[in-house]
Amino acid sequence: MDKHEKWMQQVLELAEKGRGNTSPNPMVGAVIVKDDKIIGKSYHRKFGAAHAERGAIGQAGESARGATLYVNLEPCSHEGKTPPCVDQIIKAGISEVYIGMIDPNPRVNGRGVQKLREAGINVHIGLLEKEARQLNRGFIQYMSKNRPWITLKMAQTADGYIADVSGKSQWITSSEAREYVMHQRKIHDGIMVGMGTVFKDDPGLLPANLDGFVPYRIVLDDSLRIPYRLKLVSDEFRHRTVVVTASNKKDQKIKQLTGLGIRIVHTVGDSFGWIDLTAAMKQLSEVGITSIYCEGGSQLAGSLIQLGMVDEIQLFIAPKVLGEGISTFSGFMKSLDSAIPLHWKEIKQLGPDILLRGELA
Amino acid sequence: MDKHEKWMQQVLELAEKGRGNTSPNPMVGAVIVKDDKIIGKSYHRKFGAAHAERGAIGQAGESARGATLYVNLEPCSHEGKTPPCVDQIIKAGISEVYIGMIDPNPRVNGRGVQKLREAGINVHIGLLEKEARQLNRGFIQYMSKNRPWITLKMAQTADGYIADVSGKSQWITSSEAREYVMHQRKIHDGIMVGMGTVFKDDPGLLPANLDGFVPYRIVLDDSLRIPYRLKLVSDEFRHRTVVVTASNKKDQKIKQLTGLGIRIVHTVGDSFGWIDLTAAMKQLSEVGITSIYCEGGSQLAGSLIQLGMVDEIQLFIAPKVLGEGISTFSGFMKSLDSAIPLHWKEIKQLGPDILLRGELA
Repeated sequence: MDKHEKWMQQVLELAEKGRGNTSPNPMVGAVIVKDDKIIGKSYHRKFGAAHAERGAIGQAGESARGATLYVNLEPCSHEGKTPPCVDQIIKAGISEVYIGMIDPNPRVNGRGVQKLREAGINVHIGLLEKEARQLNRGFIQYMSKNRPWITLKMAQTADGYIADVSGKSQWITSSEAREYVMHQRKIHDGIMVGMGTVFKDDPGLLPANLDGFVPYRIVLDDSLRIPYRLKLVSDEFRHRTVVVTASNKKDQKIKQLTGLGIRIVHTVGDSFGWIDLTAAMKQLSEVGITSIYCEGGSQLAGSLIQLGMVDEIQLFIAPKVLGEGISTFSGFMKSLDSAIPLHWKEIKQLGPDILLRGELA
Repeated sequence: MDKHEKWMQQVLELAEKGRGNTSPNPMVGAVIVKDDKIIGKSYHRKFGAAHAERGAIGQAGESARGATLYVNLEPCSHEGKTPPCVDQIIKAGISEVYIGMIDPNPRVNGRGVQKLREAGINVHIGLLEKEARQLNRGFIQYMSKNRPWITLKMAQTADGYIADVSGKSQWITSSEAREYVMHQRKIHDGIMVGMGTVFKDDPGLLPANLDGFVPYRIVLDDSLRIPYRLKLVSDEFRHRTVVVTASNKKDQKIKQLTGLGIRIVHTVGDSFGWIDLTAAMKQLSEVGITSIYCEGGSQLAGSLIQLGMVDEIQLFIAPKVLGEGISTFSGFMKSLDSAIPLHWKEIKQLGPDILLRGELA
């Protein structure tokens, strides 16, 4: 790792601190270096707050003149909630800028770099770009596809069942695998489940460690049947619960849930009255949810994978055989020639279980 | 790897040459070393032929006096088809013996070592024992459990289907995975399938490379329904086909199949007329089949795993999703609390597919 990568690594770690509070804005960190020393550093703390570049330049003050700026995302060139960063960079006299990735936001998308270069600043693009893209994959997805990044997690037996015939699924996988899931709940804006899972398991969908970021807990409830006694609508984090529904008939229930602090996303239904997932995802991204960790069940998982809306699949394979049970996906049936193709990206052993991470091919 | 391990490695490679021809005897290699040079080496070529030690001693001649013998299995102490090896070792004047593993054959089982030690020979046991056991796992199984070693191979989609709803399974996995299977067909005495698979796929069950060892091709055919036109009973290797049946009514068909060179193993049926697998496996081991590679289908796989008769499971997971299809195992149903536990031993990427190697826990 050369010295530029070393500084950019620090930028990425700073940016990460904003996780959960910046959406739908990206996570951004900035470091200003002069004579091999950091003279200013900052990160984007939350949506609406100052950009990282501004904080770092403020810290560096007059020393910024002739210094080098490292930032994971192209500085903005447009007037938003805050003034354009490129103007501040030019004004501060920064002479060189290292950028992780170009901002996919159509209002920036290269214009920031252009403005910096026109001002005579030496600009390098693509330093630790892969890491920068991974960090802001939710934001990139939101900008390019108008929906959140969706990670689908399913935990199954070796023979492909997510529960036994009685519906019991706790626990198919080990505590090591569940710890991994707990971590994933911290690096996505929202955790999503279908109503079948809510009825069956009454899940809390919380990360293990509750000091800090609590993700949105999103339940897809087509006809707004969620009982008031369940955790998602009654526990102390209910203000982080989002109920997506296509129901038009339950104004009273919507009023009561809203009164409890729960956010209702009212979306269109298809001809069966079921939630139109494409519309729902767009609405969720507008709420500021740029990445979702979907934990099933099989109906929701089946719909997402069929619609091509799964950006990453995390398939946990437990060393167990049931013979019969609840299938991982439901709601569709492909022939071998038209099977939905995946691509395995990573294999990992987690305690006794195997995690296969893949994407749609 | 120290020098003793290096010689033993050569012993194992020699022993391996007997693969397919020694069953139900073990594969054995022997190397005699003096002054850091090999002065004699041999292996057990086929059932009934000379033991490896005898060949090596013959080569070494008078030089064997004071030399060191490396052999992967304890030399025999009993009169069998050939005279006891320990007597020849003592007579040749070998002064030191390195042994991979004790012979589990109750007629030997430590007596060989005892006799060598009583003759003043310095004996070391357990050099590359793990490798020695792996090599002869079929023989060990045959000696200890009175049935062949059984490796169960299943190739499934990510959601646990071995075929689509129409029954199509060719090909779920990639050519890389199938190459692995082809190799496995060379290192097991027999390849086994159920009658459903035979009807559906008309498989040849041959390894890719046909210059040399051709494994037995074993089909479990409860009521002897196999049609004469199928490959297993009509191709040029039909003398390597074993049909196991529980049928009592088809003397004429048995006569005809036998006339074609096919071996019939007549075994007991259960109350439904289905083959009693425990009895059948014992009979197959008596035919000289000490290791079996079972390639399904789901009914046979389900029966074997339920009976605890699977020594190794090879689960290929293809990056494909079907939504519905033919399940990997059929014929039983467990609750999550009584699921059949496995233990993953190895994970391997084979082209686009994943291979999980496991054993019953």
